[in-house]
Amino acid sequence: MDLTKIKDPSFLKELSNEELESLAFHIRTFLIEKLSVTGGHLGANLGVVELTLALHRQFNSPQDKLIFDVGHQSYIHKILTGRTGQFDTLRQYKGLCGFPKMSESEHDVWEAGHSSTSLSAAMGMTIARDLKGDSNFVVPIIGDGALTGGMALEALNHIGHENKNIIVILNDNEMSIANNVGALHNALGRMRSAGKYNRVKDEMEWLMKKIPAVGGKIAQTAERIKDSMKYFIVPGMLFEEFGFTYYGPVDGHDFNDLQENIQYAKKTDGPVLVHVITQKGKGYHPAESDKKDKWHGVGPYKIESGEKIKPVNQAPAWSEVVSNTLQKIARQDNRLTVITPAMILGSKLDKFQKEFPDRLYDVGIAEQHATTLSAGLATQGMKPFLAIYSTFLQRAYDQLLHDVCRQNLNVAFGIDRSGLVGADGETHQGVFDISFLRHMPNMTIMMPKDENECQHMVNTAIKYNDGPIAVRFARGNALGVPMDTELKTIPIGTWEILKDGTDAAILTFGTTIEMAMKAHEKYKAQGISIKVVNARFIKPLDESMLHEIMSSDLPILTLEESVLQGGFGSAVLEFAEENNYALNHIERMGIPNRFIEHGNVKELLNEVGLTEDSVSNKLKQILPSKKQRA
Amino acid sequence: MDLTKIKDPSFLKELSNEELESLAFHIRTFLIEKLSVTGGHLGANLGVVELTLALHRQFNSPQDKLIFDVGHQSYIHKILTGRTGQFDTLRQYKGLCGFPKMSESEHDVWEAGHSSTSLSAAMGMTIARDLKGDSNFVVPIIGDGALTGGMALEALNHIGHENKNIIVILNDNEMSIANNVGALHNALGRMRSAGKYNRVKDEMEWLMKKIPAVGGKIAQTAERIKDSMKYFIVPGMLFEEFGFTYYGPVDGHDFNDLQENIQYAKKTDGPVLVHVITQKGKGYHPAESDKKDKWHGVGPYKIESGEKIKPVNQAPAWSEVVSNTLQKIARQDNRLTVITPAMILGSKLDKFQKEFPDRLYDVGIAEQHATTLSAGLATQGMKPFLAIYSTFLQRAYDQLLHDVCRQNLNVAFGIDRSGLVGADGETHQGVFDISFLRHMPNMTIMMPKDENECQHMVNTAIKYNDGPIAVRFARGNALGVPMDTELKTIPIGTWEILKDGTDAAILTFGTTIEMAMKAHEKYKAQGISIKVVNARFIKPLDESMLHEIMSSDLPILTLEESVLQGGFGSAVLEFAEENNYALNHIERMGIPNRFIEHGNVKELLNEVGLTEDSVSNKLKQILPSKKQRA
Repeated sequence: MDLTKIKDPSFLKELSNEELESLAFHIRTFLIEKLSVTGGHLGANLGVVELTLALHRQFNSPQDKLIFDVGHQSYIHKILTGRTGQFDTLRQYKGLCGFPKMSESEHDVWEAGHSSTSLSAAMGMTIARDLKGDSNFVVPIIGDGALTGGMALEALNHIGHENKNIIVILNDNEMSIANNVGALHNALGRMRSAGKYNRVKDEMEWLMKKIPAVGGKIAQTAERIKDSMKYFIVPGMLFEEFGFTYYGPVDGHDFNDLQENIQYAKKTDGPVLVHVITQKGKGYHPAESDKKDKWHGVGPYKIESGEKIKPVNQAPAWSEVVSNTLQKIARQDNRLTVITPAMILGSKLDKFQKEFPDRLYDVGIAEQHATTLSAGLATQGMKPFLAIYSTFLQRAYDQLLHDVCRQNLNVAFGIDRSGLVGADGETHQGVFDISFLRHMPNMTIMMPKDENECQHMVNTAIKYNDGPIAVRFARGNALGVPMDTELKTIPIGTWEILKDGTDAAILTFGTTIEMAMKAHEKYKAQGISIKVVNARFIKPLDESMLHEIMSSDLPILTLEESVLQGGFGSAVLEFAEENNYALNHIERMGIPNRFIEHGNVKELLNEVGLTEDSVSNKLKQILPSKKQRA
Repeated sequence: MDLTKIKDPSFLKELSNEELESLAFHIRTFLIEKLSVTGGHLGANLGVVELTLALHRQFNSPQDKLIFDVGHQSYIHKILTGRTGQFDTLRQYKGLCGFPKMSESEHDVWEAGHSSTSLSAAMGMTIARDLKGDSNFVVPIIGDGALTGGMALEALNHIGHENKNIIVILNDNEMSIANNVGALHNALGRMRSAGKYNRVKDEMEWLMKKIPAVGGKIAQTAERIKDSMKYFIVPGMLFEEFGFTYYGPVDGHDFNDLQENIQYAKKTDGPVLVHVITQKGKGYHPAESDKKDKWHGVGPYKIESGEKIKPVNQAPAWSEVVSNTLQKIARQDNRLTVITPAMILGSKLDKFQKEFPDRLYDVGIAEQHATTLSAGLATQGMKPFLAIYSTFLQRAYDQLLHDVCRQNLNVAFGIDRSGLVGADGETHQGVFDISFLRHMPNMTIMMPKDENECQHMVNTAIKYNDGPIAVRFARGNALGVPMDTELKTIPIGTWEILKDGTDAAILTFGTTIEMAMKAHEKYKAQGISIKVVNARFIKPLDESMLHEIMSSDLPILTLEESVLQGGFGSAVLEFAEENNYALNHIERMGIPNRFIEHGNVKELLNEVGLTEDSVSNKLKQILPSKKQRA
């Protein structure tokens, strides 16, 4: 079967169940093969092959709105909507996006990347449909993990209240990114094991008749018992309580079961929830037997064995350095407690969890709760460390500002995946955190130049007693430098001169230091001396060093892998303005004010003009011209 | 009874129920009297008099942690912890804070202002307690409205899962700030009417015995029916399903009922939820009979009649101007849909709701959902207008960035209570929105100089088709200028010269324009001519006007009632840097990087140095000195 011939999903309506099963097999084979080369979200997509086929068969996309929550499980949807031929470029620069993308297809009616947005989006589309008098279906497809995100629960509450026609597909694979946590998860477990309405209906009716007919108060009670029976016959009473009609549990790999229940849902008035049980990694043995969800997002692998093909790299991942350091500190300091919102694996906290099971809390996909829970810990003299990706910390902006910074609590943040992240693309780039943290009073922000400084910064963060403090670090591997055996603390607000120079100064931190160092070398060969400063504290600035540099009239180039508006460079401009320095000595380089799509980090840096060459060229501009103007 | 003699709540343990009732009466009288002068959150506090007394009698604060969600209902707590004498200064500059404040008392273990934070904080304190091996109680007190906020639901899910000892007091007054919305509210209604366990227990057992003893499959079914009975006998099955032991409903004005259930809760292992029914405004007739919750937060009033004592002011409130304009536009444009997160009254949307009931959606306290729902509407060609306070928009930072700006959707934001808000203090100041919106790609930000420009800006926002756009406006009343009858649109990114001048330029917008105009007049008298620019677009800047001003070497003063870091002034610095202008002509004035406490806005502006005099003085500095340096 040639999947590249599929232009749109309309052909599905003609297929028999046998043909659907054959198609499902071909799609699985295709995905396992393609992703073994490109990498991608294999597990989630293998789990929703039948579900996606059934949805596209039962609904008419794009008139009916299929909204994929998070969106990394939309590969089958992409195949069915004419994008099979682009899978060789999946998640690559200018290639097929790993998430739904409106510019790729009219069938992508909503873009995501972060979880838990689909229900709110669906409610908006539903209100629009009803105001316009249209009659299309609106069908958000949300995982059990994403359902516990606060905004999904807010939406559930609102949807249940408004009683509009909306069909929620709950894709329950018993894991979000890692094992799911939370009471809702337990409730889903009970639903899964409860069996179905129709299986027990007859027995129920038989029993109900045996309840004796009596009068008075007892009769009322009997009536209410009958009411309460719905909690027995409908396993999804939790959702019924939220105002939804519940169908399920449905076998997500059985076309009959899927289609029957979707058809019920289409005929039902008001909000419906179809509870579909799927298996992540279905059809590929190494992924099926994966209990730790290591097949959630993968790089290239060998198809036969499932062995991952790792690039040769001796340096540890940044997150591993952080996690190891936390373990080291936890052995000495029993106040340290680590919080993660569903990212034990991503943040490489599994070893920490094994050694300190009581001192690691995985709260599920719940960034707001994670942040304020950390604040609560801090009020009691504990030392919480919140391990969180830069892009997900965006979810907790107000909790950071209102709960942590305003109360000036000693919460340490490990901001993972700061800067450009690459293949996940524009929904995941960690390029805003400096701009949104820098204006929060009481906040301290650091970024290390290498993993040795990183471990000292983590230690500095835990030792710090004057309020919130963040260490941000990049995605991927560190530099491979030797590590000090003793942990140190770094004096707050101190920068470090990496190369001295008298003709210009580059102020930079983290990943962009390398470019600055290369520019230094290049100019050194020409007899021009460029100072390179490791501006490792983004807030507070090293004011004494800035005074020294600015009062000596040295032209300054600020360089950051972060959005320019309100960023580090702006902080330097603000400092100069506040201290009445002549500001025409300063140039800023960083990420422009637009969203940066997927690709490898080097390609993306090149696209936004953050390269060794562009740094050198910018220096060339400011060296003479700025000097002349000064 | 002299309430000022109360130093701490320990005396409550000795009181009989009759004495407690008498104390409750005195506290109500005190609050009704004091708040008739100072204003404050009367309704909420009158509702929790008995509850607060019962809690302080049953628990030992501050060892036991009483955590007031939102915190505006903590007045009785403040009385019981020795702060009665400060009520004359309630919500006034340097006076008693309207919310819990750690610096006021060791009994204030958590500060709030925004809703829905208490459960997460409580979970943090509970984990800390258990890690430290302490045995105190942790008792968050949360309203039914706050419970639907996403982070509260995230916390509920986590608390139910972890099975730690924590006692949640659900203060259910059937209204949050306005009528509560959502499926949870409906579920609470069912619980309220369900009556209590012990009332029906005996009848239940009698009936259960009548279910016939049978074998095989039927027996299993019967067993499961018995299990399901808990959903009948326990009205709070929704909470039971979340992993909580449910007690209630409890009469929140009956000391026996309250104390009995709190005692049960103290003896119960694992998370407990005590469902307390209270009446907002209890004991003060005008507030009791208030269906629209107009007694939630009040200014001064006449005690006898309940008549509000309004300051004489002919000018309409800013939010009224916005709401009226929306009504006008909605009559012409049926794409316009208004969204509010529980602020119909605060945003003065009641008239809009009356005229367009289908086109106003109150989603409850759910800022994240409100924002992404608006995005969903926009994908379908509708024109959503999200009416939201600046401080609450902080809750939707990621939804703004990831869902609205990244997809470049036509969502209009009416950002109410921008700038300093006064009596509500540091949790509510709307001084961060410029800094957090400005770095979001695709965002447009406006602020009007008066209500006439405001109506045109609202119209501009609805007509705009190139992405998200915000109109921010202040709390309180507008200026009283005449209104154009025809709505216009304002060209995006255009500023307006209010006063021309050749010696310096003030770039400012909104509330601070007045200071700039006064400075202009003052200098004019001295023969110095100051240009005053209405920089009504904070993003994008009016680049052509900036080029004109900067190329003419005019010293510039930027002036904003907003935090300086990453703010409008920084945007001007960034523009100058990007365009190679000499930046030593620019000075910035705005809010410093710290949290600003309560007080009236004039006092607060004075404290942070934003006054006519300081503007004049700053100009004095830059006029000669900057000129010399240039």
